[in-house]
Amino acid sequence: MQALIAGTERVAQGDLAARCEVSSRNEMGQLAAAFNRMTHQLGVAEAENDEWSRTLEKRVVEETEQRSRAQQQVLHMEKMASLGTLAATVAHELNN
Amino acid sequence: MQALIAGTERVAQGDLAARCEVSSRNEMGQLAAAFNRMTHQLGVAEAENDEWSRTLEKRVVEETEQRSRAQQQVLHMEKMASLGTLAATVAHELNN
Repeated sequence: MQALIAGTERVAQGDLAARCEVSSRNEMGQLAAAFNRMTHQLGVAEAENDEWSRTLEKRVVEETEQRSRAQQQVLHMEKMASLGTLAATVAHELNN
Repeated sequence: MQALIAGTERVAQGDLAARCEVSSRNEMGQLAAAFNRMTHQLGVAEAENDEWSRTLEKRVVEETEQRSRAQQQVLHMEKMASLGTLAATVAHELNN
C-alpha cells in the first residue's frame, strides 16, 4: 500500500514512469495493475502532446522564416522601385 | 478499494475529473487523498498543455496570414514591375 501511495505522489509530481509491483491477485493487485495501466496511458498521452507541440513549434518557425523572406523581398523591391523612379527622373532632367 | 480501482481506470482512459472520497485516516484514506492530489495536478498540467497548444496554433495562423500577405505583395509588385518594363519598352519603340 505504501508503494502505491508513493507511486501516486510521484505521478502527482509529473513522474509518469512510476510503476507498482503486482504481487497478488487480490484487490491490492488489481489496484496495482490499474495503476500501471494508468501511468502507461498517461505516458502515451504525454508523448502525443509533446509530439503535437513540437509539430506546432516547427510550423511557427517555418512560417516565420517564410514571412521574413517575403518581407525582405518586398523591402528590396521597394528600394529598387524607388531607385528606378530616381534614375528615370534624373534621365528626364538631363534630356531637357 | 473498488472506488480507487474504478477511479484509476477512469484516469487511464483520460478522465482526470475522477476523485475518491477520503473516508478514513488509515492507509486507504492516505491513498485516496494522494489519488485526489494526483488527479488535480494532472488536470492542471493538462490545462497548461492545452493552453500552450492553443497559443502555438494561434501563432501558426497569424504567421501564415502574414506570410500570405507578404507573398501577395511580392506577386503584385512583380506584376507592376513587368508592366513598367513593358511600358518603357513600348515608349522607347515609339520614340525611335
